Amino acid sequence: MANTHLWFTELQNEDLTIGLRIKKILHSEQTEYQTMDVVETVQYGNMLVLDGCIMTTDKDEFVYHEMLAHVPMHTHPNPKKVLVVGGGDGGIIREAIKHPSVEKAVLAEIDGRVIEISKQYFPHIASGLSDPRVEVHVADGILHVQNHPNEYDVILVDSTDPIGPAVGLFAKEFYQAVFNALKEDGVFAAQTESPFINQDLIARVYRDVQDTFPIAKLYWGTVPTYPTGMWSFTLGSKKHDPLAVNTCRVADTKYYTPEIHHASFVLPKFLQELLRK
Amino acid sequence: MANTHLWFTELQNEDLTIGLRIKKILHSEQTEYQTMDVVETVQYGNMLVLDGCIMTTDKDEFVYHEMLAHVPMHTHPNPKKVLVVGGGDGGIIREAIKHPSVEKAVLAEIDGRVIEISKQYFPHIASGLSDPRVEVHVADGILHVQNHPNEYDVILVDSTDPIGPAVGLFAKEFYQAVFNALKEDGVFAAQTESPFINQDLIARVYRDVQDTFPIAKLYWGTVPTYPTGMWSFTLGSKKHDPLAVNTCRVADTKYYTPEIHHASFVLPKFLQELLRK
Repeated sequence: MANTHLWFTELQNEDLTIGLRIKKILHSEQTEYQTMDVVETVQYGNMLVLDGCIMTTDKDEFVYHEMLAHVPMHTHPNPKKVLVVGGGDGGIIREAIKHPSVEKAVLAEIDGRVIEISKQYFPHIASGLSDPRVEVHVADGILHVQNHPNEYDVILVDSTDPIGPAVGLFAKEFYQAVFNALKEDGVFAAQTESPFINQDLIARVYRDVQDTFPIAKLYWGTVPTYPTGMWSFTLGSKKHDPLAVNTCRVADTKYYTPEIHHASFVLPKFLQELLRK
Repeated sequence: MANTHLWFTELQNEDLTIGLRIKKILHSEQTEYQTMDVVETVQYGNMLVLDGCIMTTDKDEFVYHEMLAHVPMHTHPNPKKVLVVGGGDGGIIREAIKHPSVEKAVLAEIDGRVIEISKQYFPHIASGLSDPRVEVHVADGILHVQNHPNEYDVILVDSTDPIGPAVGLFAKEFYQAVFNALKEDGVFAAQTESPFINQDLIARVYRDVQDTFPIAKLYWGTVPTYPTGMWSFTLGSKKHDPLAVNTCRVADTKYYTPEIHHASFVLPKFLQELLRK
């Protein structure tokens, strides 16, 4: 269907929507885990939608993928083995393997259809999945983490919202399992929603990560297609301080720079106060 | 009208909308210059809408008002006389007069109805307008600037989008007039739209301000109800370097801190590259 009067509307919460004019609906299916749609938008190019929520778009995917990957990856001085939980579109893997030290990057995505459809409609995002260093597991990330103690240098959690298949990825038990799956100087980061409309979640996750890791920090970036445009990430580290980073290993970014790395940890006052509660 | 199935939808550009569930429509009129609506939203409280564009809301107004006021105000070591062009809701004046050095703050708003309606429906935003240091002029800001050479320490341009009544506020001639209206060490800042969807405008304004002022800088913040959630501001300064700021004169902020001041000048790489063109 091609119709310039067709709009995609995401109910970002009960009281808030984003709407995007659609050029074409490219794909729709019900997978084992969720509904999945791919639509071509005028504003942001191709867009992946899971259970009605925008996951990624051609035009703004770089912010989220670079920020979730490069901040923790640079925090580790020599990341060799990396796990991405979720992230079936491949964007986090693509960024992670830009770090030359990486020998193996494992993707544990529960929904294999997301991987297949991303390869078809988002080839520039999924490009890293065919790298020889990458192992793709269609598997429950929680089980994978539980079954691989003391194995990873960096674990990146690229989940959907904390409802449906992803709810376990926001649980304290999961952060403990992530801690155990990391080597003695491992680093972890997860996407943790909008500081404007998910404050209870952010405060709770931050406390849980703080209880689990010696170093816990919140950082943020600006993602136009996510609710409110401001997006948070929570980082847990066993040893390395993310604020001590002074190297940059990747040149071909569109958002991340060493200066953005540091600026992303500078929190607006309302967010500082939220974490102090 | 009170109806939980009522939505306000802003066409942010031809291909992009934001939608907000409405509790109540509080006011609607056609002023001499524009349509004006005040609606009560579930997500963001009361919201002011001019010509169909969201101007400000109870819940997120603090970001925009603090960032447009405090970054240039702190850049000046001793701002005594301040001009706000536009900004009839009073939010910029409210923030500007938090600086204890301010002796006089002038508001030049072309549409007197915006001022009156803001006092009625946004009393906490308009609160500064009744301060004895504040002079409210219902007047064309461009003429005011042209007619007051060498008068102001700081000029803040809080305009609507560069269409309709505000188009002249984005012209190079206006920046030259602002330069002339500033004292020898004056500082100016203006809101300059979204780095994701107004790139041509941002690059052009930046060049014009760079041609006009010895020091020109772009900075940014995150405003949920503005298109894409990422918002830019352009600062021009005759003498004082905004990156040399090391004092903070205001305690009661919700977004601004001295650290946010500096972080707001750290630009994502795509934005650095835009300004280098």
